[in-house]
Amino acid sequence: MASSNLQIDSGRLWRDIHDTAKFGATPKGGVKRLTLSEEDKKVRDWFREACLAAGCEVHVDELGDMYALRPGRDNNRPPIGFGSHLDTQPTGGKYDGVLGTLAALEVIRTLNDAGIVTEAPLCIINWTNEEGSRFAPATMGSAAYVGEYTAENILGRRDVDGVSVAAALESIGYRGNEAMGARKLGGFVELHIEQGPILEAENKTIGVVEGGQGIVWYDGTITGFASHAGATPMALRHDALLALSELALAVEQAAITHKAVATIGEIKIENASRNVVPGDITFTIDARSLLTEALDKMDKAFKAAVAEIAARRGVGIELIPIWRKEPTIFNADYVEAVAQASSKLGYASRRITSGAIHDACNLSMAVPTAMIFVPCKDGISHNELEDAKETDCAAGANVLLHTVLKLAGVAGERKPG
Amino acid sequence: MASSNLQIDSGRLWRDIHDTAKFGATPKGGVKRLTLSEEDKKVRDWFREACLAAGCEVHVDELGDMYALRPGRDNNRPPIGFGSHLDTQPTGGKYDGVLGTLAALEVIRTLNDAGIVTEAPLCIINWTNEEGSRFAPATMGSAAYVGEYTAENILGRRDVDGVSVAAALESIGYRGNEAMGARKLGGFVELHIEQGPILEAENKTIGVVEGGQGIVWYDGTITGFASHAGATPMALRHDALLALSELALAVEQAAITHKAVATIGEIKIENASRNVVPGDITFTIDARSLLTEALDKMDKAFKAAVAEIAARRGVGIELIPIWRKEPTIFNADYVEAVAQASSKLGYASRRITSGAIHDACNLSMAVPTAMIFVPCKDGISHNELEDAKETDCAAGANVLLHTVLKLAGVAGERKPG
Repeated sequence: MASSNLQIDSGRLWRDIHDTAKFGATPKGGVKRLTLSEEDKKVRDWFREACLAAGCEVHVDELGDMYALRPGRDNNRPPIGFGSHLDTQPTGGKYDGVLGTLAALEVIRTLNDAGIVTEAPLCIINWTNEEGSRFAPATMGSAAYVGEYTAENILGRRDVDGVSVAAALESIGYRGNEAMGARKLGGFVELHIEQGPILEAENKTIGVVEGGQGIVWYDGTITGFASHAGATPMALRHDALLALSELALAVEQAAITHKAVATIGEIKIENASRNVVPGDITFTIDARSLLTEALDKMDKAFKAAVAEIAARRGVGIELIPIWRKEPTIFNADYVEAVAQASSKLGYASRRITSGAIHDACNLSMAVPTAMIFVPCKDGISHNELEDAKETDCAAGANVLLHTVLKLAGVAGERKPG
Repeated sequence: MASSNLQIDSGRLWRDIHDTAKFGATPKGGVKRLTLSEEDKKVRDWFREACLAAGCEVHVDELGDMYALRPGRDNNRPPIGFGSHLDTQPTGGKYDGVLGTLAALEVIRTLNDAGIVTEAPLCIINWTNEEGSRFAPATMGSAAYVGEYTAENILGRRDVDGVSVAAALESIGYRGNEAMGARKLGGFVELHIEQGPILEAENKTIGVVEGGQGIVWYDGTITGFASHAGATPMALRHDALLALSELALAVEQAAITHKAVATIGEIKIENASRNVVPGDITFTIDARSLLTEALDKMDKAFKAAVAEIAARRGVGIELIPIWRKEPTIFNADYVEAVAQASSKLGYASRRITSGAIHDACNLSMAVPTAMIFVPCKDGISHNELEDAKETDCAAGANVLLHTVLKLAGVAGERKPG
C-alpha cells in the first residue's frame, strides 16, 4: 500500500511553522503569543481556516480548545486525537507546541493528497493555555478536559490585569459552545520538541516518550539574621545565604542519588545589600522523577538536609510542597506504535522520559496516549533562541503520520498511480 | 580637681537623642533622615542653635560639614575635633552617628557647667553624608576633608533624582563658605555604637577601638546555562546557582581561615523561574580584615575557588574588585587616652576593631584619631530596631569627655563648691 511509505510534505510544514510565527513575532526571532491574546486570536483564525480548507469540521469547547475533525470510515468510533498548543511563553520560540499542532494539520493534508481514509476519525486539537504564562494553571485546557478542574473554576481565573478567562475568551471570539470533555477521543498522540539536550547529544532523531516525570514544587523560606557585614564575626552570624547554599548542594546530591532532577530556580534575599549579612531568603524547589518512590525519597532527603542545616546554622528553614503531580506512564500499545513507526521509517531513536509537563500527560489520565520527541538545538526552549531542524521536524511529523495511521487504521486509499 | 571625676548629664543627653529623633521619625520607631534633605536641614538647624546656645561659634564648609568651635586657653593650637554625623539610612535608627555628635555637644555643656577651660580649643563636627544612601560615596564629607576627593568632584555627584550635592546644599542653606580642609584639627575622637554584637555578648560597656578593618568590594558574575528544569539531566547542567553556592561556602571558609569577615550580600538570578535551571547570576562580595595581608590572602583564596568551581561546573565566573580601602590603625596615644579614660571611670572595656567604615577612619589619614564604641542591642544597626541603653550612651559620653580633656588639656576650672 502507498500508505506504508507515505511521507509528509516537509517544505509545506516548514512554511506553515514560519508563516504562523509572524503572529507575535519578536525582534529576536522568537514568538510572544500569550494565550487568548489578540495574537493568539490571529493564529487561531489562521488555524481554523487551514483546517476548514483541509476539509475538517472545526468545533470549539467552552474553554476555547479547538477540535478539527476529519471523518473516518466508521464515525461511530471515537476519533484519534493529535495536536498540541499554539500559545507561547512571553519570550517563547517558534516550535514549542506549534510543531505538534501544525504537524497534525500536515498529516491530514498528506492523507488528503494521498486519498487515504482512516477507519476511525481523526481530530486535531489545539489546547488552550498550555504555557500557563497568562493564566494559571499551565495545561489548562487539557487539565479541564480530563476533569482535573471544572470549566467554571477555570473561567473565573484572572490574569495580572484582572481579566478573567471567560472575558478573554469572549473578547477574541473563542468561547465555544461544546461542553468541556464532551468530545470523546479514542486516544491522543502529541509531537513536541524535546526541550532538553538528550536526543541532540546522542544524535537521535526521534524520542519515543514512555512517560512524563512526576513533579513536586516547593516554596521555601530561610529566616536567618540580617547584620552588619563588617561588624559581625563569622561565628556569630546566621547567614541565610550560606544555609541556602548548603541546601542547594544537598538538593543537587539528592537528585543525583535518586537518578532524578531537582532545581532551585528562584531565590530572593530580602532587603539585600552588599554590606549586610543576608537575613531572610525565599526560594523554590522543583523536583521531578519518573518514579513516585524517587519523589518521596527526595522529599525525605530535602527534609533531612533542612533539619541539619537549620540546627547547625541557627536559622529557621520552612519548605512547603505547593503542588504535586504523579508521574505519567504512557499507554504501552501507543508507545509501541510510535516505536514501530520510527523504526519502519529508519530513524535513529531512543526511549525517553518527558521532563516537562505536556497536554499529553493530562490526556493519559483519560485515554491511551503517547508522545513523540524531536531534538531542539542545545536543548533550549521557552526562549527566543529555541531552534529545530527542518529534517527533524519532518521526521517527527512522519512518525506522527504513521503512528496515527496505525492507531486509526487505514480503510482505503487511491490506487498508486 | 573636679575635672577628674566629672560626669556628663545622662538625662540631658538622652533627651537630646530622643528630641532630635523626631526629625525624620518613622512609624516603626526609627529615623529616615537622608543627607541634605529637609529633615537633615531641621536637625542641622537644631544642632546649630544648640551649639550657639552652648557658646560655640558655628562654621560650615563648602560641603556642609559643620564645625562648632569652643575656644581654649591657647587658641593658636589646633582644636581637638570630636563628633560624628546626623544623617541616617533610609530605615535608620536613633543612635548611629547621632550619639557621637550629641555626646560631643553634651561634653561641651558639661564643661560649661563646670566652668572648665581646655588648653586647646574643642571643635564638634557634624560630617555631611556619612551614610552614602543618597549620594555616593559614603563618609563623603570626611573623605573630602582629608583629600580623598576634591570638593568640586563631590559637588557634582547626583542622587537618583538627578539632584546634585551642590543643589541639595543650596536648597537647605548649608553650602558654607569655608574651603574644604581649611579648618585644621589637632586630632579627632568619635563615639559610636558598635553596630556589632561583640560588646553586648561579652558584657562590656566600652570598646576601645584600635583600628578599622580594610575592605575589598567585589562585583561578580556567573555565566552558566539556563535550561529546562525538567528536561535537563543533572550531569548536563551548568547551574549558576550551584556554582554560587560552592563559592559562598568557599568565601566563608576563607574568612574563617584568615580570621577575617567576608559576605555575599547580594545575588540576582537573571530571568529566574521556578522551572528553569539558573543561567546567569550577579553577586557581590564584601571582605574585611584589620590586616592587609589577610585581605590579600582572601583575594587569593577567592580566585582559587573561582577557578576550580568554574572548571568543574563548566561555567564562567568573573570576580572584579571594585573598591579597596586599606585597614585603619588608630593613633596609639589616642587609643591609650581612650583606654585610660575608660579605666579611670571604672567601665568594663575591651580592645576592639571597627567592622564598619566611619568618618574617623578617614580622619586618621590626616590627624591622630581614635574611636569609642558602646554596645547596641543585638548588634543591630542600619535598622529601625537599632537600640542602645541610656547608661551605655552616658558611659560612652563620659569616656569621650575624659579622653578629650586629656588630649586638649585642662587650663583652668572653677573651684569645687
